[in-house]
Amino acid sequence: MSNDEKKLTHIDETGAANMVDVGDKAVTERIAVARGSVRMLPSTLQMILSGNARKGDVLATARIAGIMAAKRTHELIPLCHPLALTKVAVDITADQELPGLVVEALAKVTGQTGVEMEALTACSVACLTIYDMAKAVDRGMVVGDIRLVEKRGGKSGHWSAH
Amino acid sequence: MSNDEKKLTHIDETGAANMVDVGDKAVTERIAVARGSVRMLPSTLQMILSGNARKGDVLATARIAGIMAAKRTHELIPLCHPLALTKVAVDITADQELPGLVVEALAKVTGQTGVEMEALTACSVACLTIYDMAKAVDRGMVVGDIRLVEKRGGKSGHWSAH
Amino acid sequence: MSNDEKKLTHIDETGAANMVDVGDKAVTERIAVARGSVRMLPSTLQMILSGNARKGDVLATARIAGIMAAKRTHELIPLCHPLALTKVAVDITADQELPGLVVEALAKVTGQTGVEMEALTACSVACLTIYDMAKAVDRGMVVGDIRLVEKRGGKSGHWSAH
Amino acid sequence: MSNDEKKLTHIDETGAANMVDVGDKAVTERIAVARGSVRMLPSTLQMILSGNARKGDVLATARIAGIMAAKRTHELIPLCHPLALTKVAVDITADQELPGLVVEALAKVTGQTGVEMEALTACSVACLTIYDMAKAVDRGMVVGDIRLVEKRGGKSGHWSAH
Amino acid sequence: MSNDEKKLTHIDETGAANMVDVGDKAVTERIAVARGSVRMLPSTLQMILSGNARKGDVLATARIAGIMAAKRTHELIPLCHPLALTKVAVDITADQELPGLVVEALAKVTGQTGVEMEALTACSVACLTIYDMAKAVDRGMVVGDIRLVEKRGGKSGHWSAH
Amino acid sequence: MSNDEKKLTHIDETGAANMVDVGDKAVTERIAVARGSVRMLPSTLQMILSGNARKGDVLATARIAGIMAAKRTHELIPLCHPLALTKVAVDITADQELPGLVVEALAKVTGQTGVEMEALTACSVACLTIYDMAKAVDRGMVVGDIRLVEKRGGKSGHWSAH
Repeated sequence: MSNDEKKLTHIDETGAANMVDVGDKAVTERIAVARGSVRMLPSTLQMILSGNARKGDVLATARIAGIMAAKRTHELIPLCHPLALTKVAVDITADQELPGLVVEALAKVTGQTGVEMEALTACSVACLTIYDMAKAVDRGMVVGDIRLVEKRGGKSGHWSAH
Repeated sequence: MSNDEKKLTHIDETGAANMVDVGDKAVTERIAVARGSVRMLPSTLQMILSGNARKGDVLATARIAGIMAAKRTHELIPLCHPLALTKVAVDITADQELPGLVVEALAKVTGQTGVEMEALTACSVACLTIYDMAKAVDRGMVVGDIRLVEKRGGKSGHWSAH
Repeated sequence: MSNDEKKLTHIDETGAANMVDVGDKAVTERIAVARGSVRMLPSTLQMILSGNARKGDVLATARIAGIMAAKRTHELIPLCHPLALTKVAVDITADQELPGLVVEALAKVTGQTGVEMEALTACSVACLTIYDMAKAVDRGMVVGDIRLVEKRGGKSGHWSAH
Repeated sequence: MSNDEKKLTHIDETGAANMVDVGDKAVTERIAVARGSVRMLPSTLQMILSGNARKGDVLATARIAGIMAAKRTHELIPLCHPLALTKVAVDITADQELPGLVVEALAKVTGQTGVEMEALTACSVACLTIYDMAKAVDRGMVVGDIRLVEKRGGKSGHWSAH
Repeated sequence: MSNDEKKLTHIDETGAANMVDVGDKAVTERIAVARGSVRMLPSTLQMILSGNARKGDVLATARIAGIMAAKRTHELIPLCHPLALTKVAVDITADQELPGLVVEALAKVTGQTGVEMEALTACSVACLTIYDMAKAVDRGMVVGDIRLVEKRGGKSGHWSAH
Repeated sequence: MSNDEKKLTHIDETGAANMVDVGDKAVTERIAVARGSVRMLPSTLQMILSGNARKGDVLATARIAGIMAAKRTHELIPLCHPLALTKVAVDITADQELPGLVVEALAKVTGQTGVEMEALTACSVACLTIYDMAKAVDRGMVVGDIRLVEKRGGKSGHWSAH
């Protein structure tokens, strides 16, 4: 299918925004993985990893925030469907090159619609939580590169970013 | 004050994450502005701006989603204080160079703590809503460069990103 | 069945209010449509449709508010079940006779209980949002005639208001 | 001021919907009272008042639902400000003429913006809750005449519907 | 299986807290019953049961609060899954020996994971609501003995506290 | 004042439950501290403290859950007022005698009403979160002794449990 034939599915023929009807889609296991990062000063990363915080608590707080946000995606993104997520996981790793923290979020459901937005929301809120906890020492942090990296299930099957 | 003397304010002396006590801070008018973007294919931007959607509805939906998310920041970011926001505004403009959409969010309060997280949350959720509405035509969009660009009020006075 | 034999299903034999057990009901596709209106001064309707607002933004905001509210029906109506809605749509049309705006909301689920309350909640909140956006020019608007107009699926099959 | 000079305050000069800035408004005690009704069959009213339900529980449930909804108004109505409500009350009385139940809701705040939407939301959700609890016996009920009946405080002072 | 072989299922091999993947569990009918109590002065119990309150309203309010809280368990308990509960019921009885009120909550679902937390959350919030409504006369009340008393469905079958 | 003259303040003269009007109360700094516990098998406590979990993550998750729940108290407890909390803190310590974990929660506000319910809610939800994370190894845990231990500010001044 050419790009020209594609449609913005949330917009109906009159141009109004509406939830897509997923009632006729197949119930399959669907997984999505999203990734993003928080770029920061080297000294900020150092402080989070070994400074006056236990590493556990900053990262644990961000991870929990991300998991809880995934469950509320349909309250935040107007046209998302409420879903009975079967799993959400958030991993956070340090990247000295960036420098900063890389957040990866996975969402999973057995249902009629994909979970990309749940993974992206978990990732975004985990990043914002890191920002919140470190902003007193580094106001210039940047949350970035939030994107889908993998998607399984549904009509389009397996897709990965590269 | 040198960076070394700075502290991760949400982490107490035992390393546990806690809400900072803002009860003794001055009540002042506080404003924060955050900016971010959604990078997309040129054809996706074209479709949003003039394609099978009325421009109004995609952007209006994202703007409303951002405003509503700002009001729920303290439910999403674990250590944020609940605030009686006096204003939230979200503006979205096209950037053909990017190519994509640039989202700017402003939050305002008369209170004892800043509204950076509210502006950043509004910006992030508006970006995610754009992603949601266009993902059927462009899975490779990237939400990025979400950062604070301006901050007024409170002890640190006026600050801007440049 | 005569009306006398009918029961207020949410009230148990001791008179206490409780959620009805729907665990044994059939999983079927269920649809409900609700309708309501906001009566206003002719000049208010005129202003919304062509005045200092783009028509799109007032109606788009109300439509989005209605859709989002449908997803939160079980949080608002104490004895409603949480449901994985497959579609919500809100349409708003002008009625010069009224004069005012007519809001129609549709909710759909594949599940064990009906979606009347979801359609009615979407309709009510869309009406309230219109009221909110126009109240500065017309405090006397009246939200009214919110009612179920159609219902499909479940034991009682198809029902329409007339 | 003529009606022509009035503006839809939530719409800015570009036509975009935004929260009004209330930061410069006076902090005063503000009260709003809203009223609405649920019209029903005489037998339904009879059943609620003396049938297989204790009168207390149906009306208590609706009253609690209305009070709780008032506190969430800013989550439902996109451009409403979060408010530290100081009081919410919901009264429900039978009207044999209607026939049906009349719901009156009062909201109060000491703040910078009015509480009309909080009173109207409490009233609407209490009506919807009554509908929910009686819909098994009377699908044709109509929620109606939801309107502001009184408003005190703020720049416009005291206003009542008649 | 010996206790030593058991695991804290929400903690993965790296020690991070995550939602357990329930996607491969069987869909069965699952029921959980939790019980708890609010101990109070004899005069407080007397006042609630026959004093200046109608018995109905205090207990009805607590019961409704418990039911509504069950539906929000996954928003409160970080690693709980969102569930389409098919029934929630809360019963409150007086215990002159305690003296106080005993709250029993039942939750039911047809799904892939148990509903213990939903029953426990309903029970806890109903107890807290009783505390709230009586705290002006008795600050020393104690909420206690909140525990699971019965569990049906899922791999472990039927379990009861004794 | 004798106990006989005291009133259940949330119940009005007609017996209906309503939010107390706090609009005329003084704005003062108010603090409340609540305490509770989770009793468990010695082996469960051991596993949480040093077993297959990092101690940090179980306790950090419960602490975050408690803090976030405090901010939502007014959504859970029907007649609680929404409050702009200035601080919430949750501490969790092991008690080998119990055996189990003791949770202490502090809430603070500058406002017109006390924060007992916020402290009690934080404490309860932190306890429930511990239960959730350990229930796979110990179904018989009991959440108990949730009570107010200290209260400062407001008309009644300083009060402590002993």
